[in-house]
Amino acid sequence: MHFARLHTPSQIQLNEQGHLKHFVSIEGLSETTLTQILDTAETFINNNNQLITSPLLEGRTVMNLFFENSTRTRMTFEAAAKRLSANVLNIDIARSSTSKGETLRDTLWNLQAMAADIFVVRHSSSGAAHFIAKDVCPNVAIINAGDGRHAHPTQAMLDMLTIRRETKKPFSELSVAIIGDIKHSRVARSDVAALQTLGCKDIRVIAPNTLLPYGFDEYGDEVRLFKNMDEGVKDCDVIMTLRIQNERIESPALASQLEFHKLYGLNETRLATAKPDCIVMHPGPMNRGVEITSSIADGPQSVILNQVTNGIAVRMAVLALAMQGQLEAQGLLNTMMAE
Amino acid sequence: MHFARLHTPSQIQLNEQGHLKHFVSIEGLSETTLTQILDTAETFINNNNQLITSPLLEGRTVMNLFFENSTRTRMTFEAAAKRLSANVLNIDIARSSTSKGETLRDTLWNLQAMAADIFVVRHSSSGAAHFIAKDVCPNVAIINAGDGRHAHPTQAMLDMLTIRRETKKPFSELSVAIIGDIKHSRVARSDVAALQTLGCKDIRVIAPNTLLPYGFDEYGDEVRLFKNMDEGVKDCDVIMTLRIQNERIESPALASQLEFHKLYGLNETRLATAKPDCIVMHPGPMNRGVEITSSIADGPQSVILNQVTNGIAVRMAVLALAMQGQLEAQGLLNTMMAE
Amino acid sequence: MHFARLHTPSQIQLNEQGHLKHFVSIEGLSETTLTQILDTAETFINNNNQLITSPLLEGRTVMNLFFENSTRTRMTFEAAAKRLSANVLNIDIARSSTSKGETLRDTLWNLQAMAADIFVVRHSSSGAAHFIAKDVCPNVAIINAGDGRHAHPTQAMLDMLTIRRETKKPFSELSVAIIGDIKHSRVARSDVAALQTLGCKDIRVIAPNTLLPYGFDEYGDEVRLFKNMDEGVKDCDVIMTLRIQNERIESPALASQLEFHKLYGLNETRLATAKPDCIVMHPGPMNRGVEITSSIADGPQSVILNQVTNGIAVRMAVLALAMQGQLEAQGLLNTMMAE
Repeated sequence: MHFARLHTPSQIQLNEQGHLKHFVSIEGLSETTLTQILDTAETFINNNNQLITSPLLEGRTVMNLFFENSTRTRMTFEAAAKRLSANVLNIDIARSSTSKGETLRDTLWNLQAMAADIFVVRHSSSGAAHFIAKDVCPNVAIINAGDGRHAHPTQAMLDMLTIRRETKKPFSELSVAIIGDIKHSRVARSDVAALQTLGCKDIRVIAPNTLLPYGFDEYGDEVRLFKNMDEGVKDCDVIMTLRIQNERIESPALASQLEFHKLYGLNETRLATAKPDCIVMHPGPMNRGVEITSSIADGPQSVILNQVTNGIAVRMAVLALAMQGQLEAQGLLNTMMAE
Repeated sequence: MHFARLHTPSQIQLNEQGHLKHFVSIEGLSETTLTQILDTAETFINNNNQLITSPLLEGRTVMNLFFENSTRTRMTFEAAAKRLSANVLNIDIARSSTSKGETLRDTLWNLQAMAADIFVVRHSSSGAAHFIAKDVCPNVAIINAGDGRHAHPTQAMLDMLTIRRETKKPFSELSVAIIGDIKHSRVARSDVAALQTLGCKDIRVIAPNTLLPYGFDEYGDEVRLFKNMDEGVKDCDVIMTLRIQNERIESPALASQLEFHKLYGLNETRLATAKPDCIVMHPGPMNRGVEITSSIADGPQSVILNQVTNGIAVRMAVLALAMQGQLEAQGLLNTMMAE
Repeated sequence: MHFARLHTPSQIQLNEQGHLKHFVSIEGLSETTLTQILDTAETFINNNNQLITSPLLEGRTVMNLFFENSTRTRMTFEAAAKRLSANVLNIDIARSSTSKGETLRDTLWNLQAMAADIFVVRHSSSGAAHFIAKDVCPNVAIINAGDGRHAHPTQAMLDMLTIRRETKKPFSELSVAIIGDIKHSRVARSDVAALQTLGCKDIRVIAPNTLLPYGFDEYGDEVRLFKNMDEGVKDCDVIMTLRIQNERIESPALASQLEFHKLYGLNETRLATAKPDCIVMHPGPMNRGVEITSSIADGPQSVILNQVTNGIAVRMAVLALAMQGQLEAQGLLNTMMAE
């Protein structure tokens, strides 16, 4: 069983040498490329588990194009770009010239002509970043910061980095359970794709029918579906809880947060059935007491705040690698970084 | 024929050595000064036609004071200042203390006391930047980023830089036509002044009476007025189209965008009557299909996106030169840049 | 007579070596610590009375968390942090995930996990910065940028720096009068605490009963209360005027700004009764003609704009010292700055 894929193929995301030049979707990238992103991210974390700074993007201009508001994601990209010494411009794209009747294409061409090297794109429509990378500004490194229900690939990569750093096991030995609102989560889709690409042994999805996307049952057996939470978390190495969005709970059986918590919330009893060293993740913001109890969120198995720090490292890696791949594609590479 | 001038005289814009210390209006500046701005801008563009970065404003503080919203202009100044290594502070002046009953003068003095070196000023009232440079903060370098219908001098200079770089001919040999909404365009006024100062051979304005400012006919013959588009563009080296602002079309004869396009839009037939190597410009944002057809906007004679890149270079030049002139005026110059 | 204190004790604000690691309230800090802040601030001002820049916070991330809007204070901290070469992130905290039901604690933990070194906190509730420093993020340097009616300690320190630089006398020889809306001013409370700690000889408060906080009369005689303006300013070395907030004037006797000016406004006649070299201060924004006449605000005894510049220097000092104290507390100090 796997997701219907709306993916950006490798020939768009990679340059002729096979190196990343855009980062639009997990789908279309190989295990080698994903592993390179994780390895590069590790270089930005020192032995004290602290993020370092680097001059890799000195003199480069990163523009944050947020067509929908997401303070947290915007800040993580801004922090990552500044740690790489880039100039960062935040564009309040809703207030810009598109409102004066200019086409989106013209707005983007104008921003590119202002000497942008990288666009970080957040858009409510699936495929927006893909469209920009393929058809509008192929020579600007396009980083997808979330598009519609489709993809949130840097979130997936920070989850992968956290799993790798915290379990210290190869993906081929891991059982990973993703719980909750699969249907509305751009995180879940990208996470499943990344886990598959990295060769995860056992991917489980735990959700009621009402929180699964249409057609989820049609696919093969790469992903195992559990409707019963207690069965699903048994012997897991990693439990990934998702944010439940209240207004999206349609089922009468899940009419309240309490009801959801009873059926699908992660509590101490359920966590005890997973492996003893099982780690617990959440993409934030959390609804404490709904998808996860506070004692677990703040407990020794929680790696939720590590995810946030790893998110900066992963975004630094993606920004640096895509910039390098663009320079290489344009014949301008002066060995920006050692591979 | 020329515009009624509301200009900032040279004794305000230049220091005792005759060097720029504020940049408020084209009027009041000599051919020598304008040429120095263009020459300096060229130093910020490398042989690959890419913008470079420079440490010229390292440690300097540039404050963007936008009393009216203009995302695009604000971003170009922010990008320019950051390329010069300045610290940039954007002030949402509408939300600041002026709303607590403080006078504009006190607000500006406060900002100056926060160690501002340069104010980039955008205001809806003609003469705002002039007033600040002359009466409020003469020791801060004041850069006019557009004031009312009056002036938009950095836009004019980026147009001049584009003409010089793309035609590769001296201004004394050029025929330049400006088309459209002259009446409401702060760009047109500044462009005509710059072309005159730089000794342009033949300046033409093409517009219906309803889109000309009052009193346009009273003046001499420095500028030629054409009401017929086909006559106006004949044998031109440069065609500058202007944004038509729908809500400002008053004439019944121009009641629709289609009607405007028919009479004054730049299309292939009309462009064919200009010189074969005629370049086509537009200050953006474009109304495709109104003042210009898409095929020309995206065609080989269009230099519209070059204008945007040149806009960063020109703003870098103006920021650097005015800073240097202020330091010289205050006896603090330690040879910031070679002339 | 002194204020009821809501202070952050030294064991929270200082590390084990007795050095600043948070800056939350003047109360709880010793004369030695306050003097070190003033001495450090002086190092950021050169012989031409101009602010310098410094690499002290290079690679550090300062996050401005403004839970209530204060453009001016936010800008001074941003300018100070950038002069120290820090990366600065402004968080529009009202639009962030707290609006998605996340707890404040989780939001702050997330920001900390994004590798924040310093939080600059502005909040409408008294004690917000104290709460964060004590209970939420003790390992991030917390700088209080104003909380409710309680404290505005960097404003107090810039006032102290201005008094020290402009009077050139020790605090033990000074008579200082604070005039006006004591009740609603977070500035007044912090100023009195700082003057007391620094050993000011004679602290006077001049205000009508309606503009005094409840219980002001209950205290001892450290502060002298004057209800008559003419008596209060006599022979003063320093007069600190405060902003009167129109909507807060409750007394019928003070029903208009004119009435306030007549009874408590600083005019030439009253200033003439102070010492001849008495300096005049105001925290801004001024209501000219209400708490102070324009001729005095712009006159030779006014040091109002010096306060603004000193505000940058003091904020640079507090940021640098608290960062150093945090590194020392965490065993990460590599001699960031000489003491």
